Amino acid sequence: MGSLDKLCVNTLRFLAVDQVEQAQSGHPGLPLGAAPMAYVLWDRILRHNPRNPKWSNRDRFILSAGHGSALLYSLLHLFGYNLPLDELKRFRQWESKTPGHPEYGRTVGVESTTGPLGQGFANGVGMALAEHFLSSLFNRPNFPIVDHFTYAIVSDGDMMEGISSEAASLAGTMHLGKIIYFYDDNRISIEGNTNLSFTENVKYRFEAYGWHVVSVTDGNNLPVIEKAIREAQRESRLPSLIIVRNHIGYGSPKQDTAEVHGAPLGKDALRKTKEALAWPAESPFHIPKEAAAHFQEAVERGTEQEANWNKLFRKYQSKYPELATLFQNSEIGKLPKDWESDVPFFKLDDGPIATREAGGKTLNALAGRIKTLVGGSADLSPSTKTLLVGEGDLGLEESGGRNIHFGVREHAMGGMLNGMALHGSTIPYGSTFMVFSDYMRPSLRLAALMQIHTIFVFTHDSVAVGEDGPTHQPVEHIQSLRLIPGLIVLRPADANETVAAWRIAITQKRPFALALTRQKLPVLDADRLSIADGVSRGGYILSEAQGCKCEIILIGTGSEVHQALDAQKILAKEGICSRVVSMPSVELFREQPDDYRQEVLPPEVPKLVVEAGVSEGWKETIGGNSDVVGISRFGASAPAKIVLEKLGFTGKLISQRARRLIKQ
Amino acid sequence: MGSLDKLCVNTLRFLAVDQVEQAQSGHPGLPLGAAPMAYVLWDRILRHNPRNPKWSNRDRFILSAGHGSALLYSLLHLFGYNLPLDELKRFRQWESKTPGHPEYGRTVGVESTTGPLGQGFANGVGMALAEHFLSSLFNRPNFPIVDHFTYAIVSDGDMMEGISSEAASLAGTMHLGKIIYFYDDNRISIEGNTNLSFTENVKYRFEAYGWHVVSVTDGNNLPVIEKAIREAQRESRLPSLIIVRNHIGYGSPKQDTAEVHGAPLGKDALRKTKEALAWPAESPFHIPKEAAAHFQEAVERGTEQEANWNKLFRKYQSKYPELATLFQNSEIGKLPKDWESDVPFFKLDDGPIATREAGGKTLNALAGRIKTLVGGSADLSPSTKTLLVGEGDLGLEESGGRNIHFGVREHAMGGMLNGMALHGSTIPYGSTFMVFSDYMRPSLRLAALMQIHTIFVFTHDSVAVGEDGPTHQPVEHIQSLRLIPGLIVLRPADANETVAAWRIAITQKRPFALALTRQKLPVLDADRLSIADGVSRGGYILSEAQGCKCEIILIGTGSEVHQALDAQKILAKEGICSRVVSMPSVELFREQPDDYRQEVLPPEVPKLVVEAGVSEGWKETIGGNSDVVGISRFGASAPAKIVLEKLGFTGKLISQRARRLIKQ
Repeated sequence: MGSLDKLCVNTLRFLAVDQVEQAQSGHPGLPLGAAPMAYVLWDRILRHNPRNPKWSNRDRFILSAGHGSALLYSLLHLFGYNLPLDELKRFRQWESKTPGHPEYGRTVGVESTTGPLGQGFANGVGMALAEHFLSSLFNRPNFPIVDHFTYAIVSDGDMMEGISSEAASLAGTMHLGKIIYFYDDNRISIEGNTNLSFTENVKYRFEAYGWHVVSVTDGNNLPVIEKAIREAQRESRLPSLIIVRNHIGYGSPKQDTAEVHGAPLGKDALRKTKEALAWPAESPFHIPKEAAAHFQEAVERGTEQEANWNKLFRKYQSKYPELATLFQNSEIGKLPKDWESDVPFFKLDDGPIATREAGGKTLNALAGRIKTLVGGSADLSPSTKTLLVGEGDLGLEESGGRNIHFGVREHAMGGMLNGMALHGSTIPYGSTFMVFSDYMRPSLRLAALMQIHTIFVFTHDSVAVGEDGPTHQPVEHIQSLRLIPGLIVLRPADANETVAAWRIAITQKRPFALALTRQKLPVLDADRLSIADGVSRGGYILSEAQGCKCEIILIGTGSEVHQALDAQKILAKEGICSRVVSMPSVELFREQPDDYRQEVLPPEVPKLVVEAGVSEGWKETIGGNSDVVGISRFGASAPAKIVLEKLGFTGKLISQRARRLIKQ
Repeated sequence: MGSLDKLCVNTLRFLAVDQVEQAQSGHPGLPLGAAPMAYVLWDRILRHNPRNPKWSNRDRFILSAGHGSALLYSLLHLFGYNLPLDELKRFRQWESKTPGHPEYGRTVGVESTTGPLGQGFANGVGMALAEHFLSSLFNRPNFPIVDHFTYAIVSDGDMMEGISSEAASLAGTMHLGKIIYFYDDNRISIEGNTNLSFTENVKYRFEAYGWHVVSVTDGNNLPVIEKAIREAQRESRLPSLIIVRNHIGYGSPKQDTAEVHGAPLGKDALRKTKEALAWPAESPFHIPKEAAAHFQEAVERGTEQEANWNKLFRKYQSKYPELATLFQNSEIGKLPKDWESDVPFFKLDDGPIATREAGGKTLNALAGRIKTLVGGSADLSPSTKTLLVGEGDLGLEESGGRNIHFGVREHAMGGMLNGMALHGSTIPYGSTFMVFSDYMRPSLRLAALMQIHTIFVFTHDSVAVGEDGPTHQPVEHIQSLRLIPGLIVLRPADANETVAAWRIAITQKRPFALALTRQKLPVLDADRLSIADGVSRGGYILSEAQGCKCEIILIGTGSEVHQALDAQKILAKEGICSRVVSMPSVELFREQPDDYRQEVLPPEVPKLVVEAGVSEGWKETIGGNSDVVGISRFGASAPAKIVLEKLGFTGKLISQRARRLIKQ
């Protein structure tokens, strides 16, 4: 290593380690080992502009091993991002820009919230897929306006997580050749040597997935690392994995031990480490001027890179003005003017239709106008109805294609959709059965934490799945999803509520989970506007008590709205006046002003919720003097109609519960 | 194929397909393709006794591709299990023994509930690990009383799921050579040809994991399949994967298409299929006498196999009476008499201790006496404190070892623990951080659905995780776990409640999730018996209002019990009398008689719950006139104390909320 390089690498190392020491909390091991490869990448390869971290054609870099956050903060600070040294000194403190694990939106230049292992791996595959998609959509001969790599540092832990396996297999299938991942092969995880749990041959495994794999035996050998990256760049068809043999806690007395993974070195060991690497032990957060100046060159480089791209884009603009406008609008998430022109309206006499079916029609209508709406299914599109008719298969053809075949890989789908949303310029969606939302829950959580625009479509949303039985019948899932802060769950009651739900999911830039039925449902007797308005408010009066004082409010969601309506009719025959409220989204309803909520659900009137799932959680929304017709057990295998009857979901049984509640 | 074999294979095929046709629902494709390999296995290899499906040394067989349930039911019926033909005729009907996907406990001979893909794969690895563990514990020279194989049929979908990758890598690491899996390589998944999403080289991938892989190019070639199995049996070190090129929907007009996967063939195609395979088209559920007689031979064979084993066991009994007793007790889940002899009791002056720490001590005390208590961690044992001190590493040594290093593979851990519980004779536990319970949620659900004795230990159970930040701080998790029907969540408030929680988890044969703290907590001022009794009731009066009328009940769980106690003191100074209820388990509390629940939580007294997590769900337990001090956002990276304060978890803030509630 040249002396300037060495100086720079050690600056990175100790700026990271000093953060950990200052906070008395964090992970010094990864930064000490991985700093050289991160340095080569950022110094010699990465195309990025620290002055404009949102430049659309930047290379993406993800620290999938998010526990090494101190390294990422050091990189960002030194390479000229707007992350002052003072923030590094407030590592892991309340409201600092340097939280324990990197958080998207909190720190400039952080491309994804990472820490839960494997997620960053899948995010990167999603970003590369987005790049591939956008390049097909926008690039024209001599105008590679979308043309960047996606880099990541992944750890042993990332490699062990199933989501990474899923995403890696798919990246191989799709020939996402612009993925270049560094595997920080340090052979230590928290419980000790990786021999304890991880003796597989990672190189062969990734070759089996269809990856290009290079091994670098010395993580301090910068030229060899650089050569490996350039070789990976030239490999345009296969994704690349560069396995770099690093040493966790390099240079410290605790090198190559689990001890150095997740706890500060301690005063003594820190001093020894600095001595070993010829670093001034007495001045924490030391940045040699020579190093600082060298790092800073990235700003000029990046500014020039972006300026060149801007030049190219201006030419593109004059040659392809419409495409250029579409590109710019997509970047800022602006929909085309005519985005809802083809959205269907379903009439009563269209007959019963499953909301998954209505969802599919709506999605197709939207996708026809919104060219950056892109997604797929975890091998269930014939059932979830999310296939875009007439569109090709993304990632499987030379160019073009908009349907993603994720395979039976729900978790990778979640992580990849998040990656696509993070990449920007796309609105990604993905579908599976509601019961399998469990398989991707960590990704759902991260979508919510990041507040990104990912749309999850979960069909077969109740025990009305029928014959497939309890393993395929969600019971606890809808309430579980509602518990994730910031995730908006939409469970429309008919075809037109489904249209309205999709409208909201498309226009609001936050994460959504749509819950759709397998079974057919009648079209509700209501006009387009009141439904659109009602759904956007989360809950609304669907059927008012007619000409008498409302004695009870029946609140339904999704398919159970129809059973509430049945119950209303039965009660009416018995002279009991009731109101039916459709509540497709508890979250949106909670966001309404008090007076609206009280108008829909006056506190003094008893309320009965009807939802084919666990009850817990409803009373916090609807208040006291209420009851829930729910399900407190797993479902059962039988035709849907029979399962629903046996579990109490008929108008008759609901009307009985209503009468009981009124009497109380 | 010989004519009798052909007859038997086709009997299996059509008995399965006729079930689907009768139900007008189900999956005919897998049975038609996979019947030959299933037949070879069951007819010539599998050691099992249809007359005693619970014979402890039987080979295990799992249909991981649970959607092929009709094939499994056909096997069970024909090979002489107590599954009458009438039940096959009631395929997928209410309360039949032939539900849509195989259900453990519902159908004799079904070793695990499968359907959610990948789970059966991991279950099998867990079963093989249990076999390995028990063989080390019980076998003696010339007494291989635990000595069986674990077989499974896995599908493309299983191979794509991340949980399978995790489990496969671990099986390779652990040299679980008695695993023999059949990969039903039919190259079709629901969206079409597997080329759409799955072009990896499965053989190389599994070799990279350290598996022995054999390819069989013709799934109808019985001798070749048999040879492959025998070869796999001889390979005692590496787990085996037999890749069998099958044809989905074999013989039908829809062969090799996705169409035949999950829908009945239909009358016409069924007739054509029967014609193609020379089967009488007019008599559904046809079982030729010759075939029936041949299948039935399994009963005699199995009876003899078990008889021989029984002979061996009787000799073992006389030579190793204590071991034999332990073996028999473990089989029926009977604990040794002295099982709780070493369980600790913590005194006030022991000082504050984290419940993860107390949990570790208790676990070690239990494991010292209960030799079949076995488990580990997903690479977090130094943090979750579940390491058994002085015990070796299971699966990594020639024999012995009781600590399982699952690696960073939460999902495989969940699936494997379930497999170990299903295997029987062990009480398995596994630990990770609470926030990562999301990674294994599908396995948690199945543990609950099967009501098996799996113990999940989730530490770092609140935002008091501190610096690691929101990605590592559970907020919605405890309530989400409570929503899973039949899963018992225990969140003890101190060291002694933790002991009591472990006691319950050990003695009650159902699935448990323990929520334990990272941070230290004072030892509660209460005696051993009242705590043990209190925890077993789920909720109890920990600190009674002293000498005055109770104006409010403060309900705490886990670490927040201490903040409730703080608030009680503050309120007392202001002359407000309150009661503190500790509620470590909502589920156990709900199981108590009404009068006990009303005694602890009298309806007329206002109640304030204190729990550092989302609030939704509490009111269903505690009724109206109540409020919750909870968290309705994600956490934040900062020292634990600061996070707790900022989010409202101090005695002072809680007492303010209490006063407000009293005034209402």
